[in-house]
Amino acid sequence: MARRIVVLTEGHTNPHTAKTASCMIRYKRDEIVALLDSTQRGKTTGELLGVGGDLPVIGSLAEAPPADTLLLGIAPPGGKIPAPWRAIILEAIERGMGIWSGLHDFVSDDPQFAAAAAARGVLLVDVRKNNERGVARRVGIRSDCLRIHTVGHDCSIGKMVASVELAQGLKRRGIDAKFIATGQTGIMVEGDGLPLDCVVADFVAGAAEKMVLQQQHHEVLVVEGQGSLVHPSYSGVTLSLLHGCVPHGLIFVYEIGRAVVTGVDHVAIPSIGKLLKMYDMMANANFQCQILGIAVNSRRVSAAEAAAERARVRDEFGLPVCDVIRDGADELLDAIVRFRDTARWREWNASPPS
Amino acid sequence: MARRIVVLTEGHTNPHTAKTASCMIRYKRDEIVALLDSTQRGKTTGELLGVGGDLPVIGSLAEAPPADTLLLGIAPPGGKIPAPWRAIILEAIERGMGIWSGLHDFVSDDPQFAAAAAARGVLLVDVRKNNERGVARRVGIRSDCLRIHTVGHDCSIGKMVASVELAQGLKRRGIDAKFIATGQTGIMVEGDGLPLDCVVADFVAGAAEKMVLQQQHHEVLVVEGQGSLVHPSYSGVTLSLLHGCVPHGLIFVYEIGRAVVTGVDHVAIPSIGKLLKMYDMMANANFQCQILGIAVNSRRVSAAEAAAERARVRDEFGLPVCDVIRDGADELLDAIVRFRDTARWREWNASPPS
Repeated sequence: MARRIVVLTEGHTNPHTAKTASCMIRYKRDEIVALLDSTQRGKTTGELLGVGGDLPVIGSLAEAPPADTLLLGIAPPGGKIPAPWRAIILEAIERGMGIWSGLHDFVSDDPQFAAAAAARGVLLVDVRKNNERGVARRVGIRSDCLRIHTVGHDCSIGKMVASVELAQGLKRRGIDAKFIATGQTGIMVEGDGLPLDCVVADFVAGAAEKMVLQQQHHEVLVVEGQGSLVHPSYSGVTLSLLHGCVPHGLIFVYEIGRAVVTGVDHVAIPSIGKLLKMYDMMANANFQCQILGIAVNSRRVSAAEAAAERARVRDEFGLPVCDVIRDGADELLDAIVRFRDTARWREWNASPPS
Repeated sequence: MARRIVVLTEGHTNPHTAKTASCMIRYKRDEIVALLDSTQRGKTTGELLGVGGDLPVIGSLAEAPPADTLLLGIAPPGGKIPAPWRAIILEAIERGMGIWSGLHDFVSDDPQFAAAAAARGVLLVDVRKNNERGVARRVGIRSDCLRIHTVGHDCSIGKMVASVELAQGLKRRGIDAKFIATGQTGIMVEGDGLPLDCVVADFVAGAAEKMVLQQQHHEVLVVEGQGSLVHPSYSGVTLSLLHGCVPHGLIFVYEIGRAVVTGVDHVAIPSIGKLLKMYDMMANANFQCQILGIAVNSRRVSAAEAAAERARVRDEFGLPVCDVIRDGADELLDAIVRFRDTARWREWNASPPS
């Protein structure tokens, strides 16, 4: 039986902070019965987040349709639970709902939540909780599984959405593709994956490599990127993942109008050209990798502005460019399939047998 | 009263694996009474590790001079306790010695060790244990504290030693310098610092930044580097640290004869020239930083070979080059002081007040 989920975004229902909510509504609409934010009561998620159409925004759990799960729908910097949410979480537990969280602050480690959940017999699931302790060894990696990795110029710009759309698009073309989730929202959407940003630093690349080893029976892996190589707080997660998943091809993701780093607003993001050089250099440090295309996120601009930017960037870098939501992913899918058909990547990144 | 330490390297007394032992003997010789390795009994650490002169290698704790601490003296990939060590650790606890460990496998979390230590009233200290949960914000960083950072082409090549020697050399010149320890051995030597490779990935840069904020009353910080930008397992730790400590100047460290990556022997290390370009690009991603010099580790070659390499590299890159142990650090110290005196770095990397 499918879950019936209320998504909690109380006080934070905007597309940026409520990234987890938006993506779950985009990809798991049939499991979600309502969004809870008393400050936006009576609106729809279509109005507030641009996804979900007429999915209702309710003001309290008492107004919710029957539901078995409360999903914490935000991903704030540092991953802390907003203080006003505690009472709502406790009320959900008392109503017999399980809690599904992707925050760094683990709900299952909170004594009050844990006691309430034990008393009521409900589950507290922390998607980020892990005990990964394997180092990357770059051994046993199949040479005929094509690995595509999304990278970008900042956090929260659509790397996960681009990855899901590419994997789904490849599947529609009859290719056995698998989305490899590396963050809390992707894991909730896909039902598997590892939360790399919450792994102990020495083992992040190892965790990425482990997912590749586990899933390389598929023909193509599309590995969700994290952060960016220039994010002052998270660049190391980005590089561990880039080196851990040993990709053959990169899709560079950026958002039009994003000029400064998320959460560190006084730091400017370098130009696309400079970033492409960085990713190219770091991805070719000791394996071979090619940038295959650019996924532009144009949600903040008009269709005409998006089209002009798309043409300009395609022209400047000689790469296929599209907004996977606005334009569909076909231009990038064509590029990935063309690259796959060259077969030359099969000679790249060969690793010793395990 | 000073500690009296027995260093345990049982079965692993070589300069590479016993890095923690070597560095503690180099910098804390007066606190160490013996090295324990039954497979090397009767030799000296001078013979086996090239440090400590006639410091004796003993075959069992029963042979040790009076001592209050057993220090686990290795840093293996993944940081696990070798199985044969368990009996030695338990014997030390029974003899009333505290345990000092830098491994990822925490001795204080081991039920058997914890029970024995509680019964005997001794301390189990895990240098890597931490609960860092702050993200880097790049705020409140003093513009007139000069930050020097050592980086390199691999693990275990002498970044920590170079950092300590540079900080000590600056102090001898009357400059208020502070060594910032970022790994287990450095922390044991200096008595403070944070074990960045054991911090949850999202918070590594934040932990590096925290040390800068805490110590920036000093005139110069020399921040110990970790791993390398091209290490398949640990590159993310390197980049988090590089971006978290916001250095003005880098010292590049490499070892002559090191051609393949530590622990991933089928992967080649790129050339010095390629690595200098990578560090330069990544360190200038969104702040300004200059490579000031090169510390060559020449322990595996003759004095003549070392001198030839030093001249060749100095010529190729136009940078000061020395082996801080063999030649002394003066050439690099001169470069750092010249750079400091230009004062132009004071206009770099300014951050908003906290």
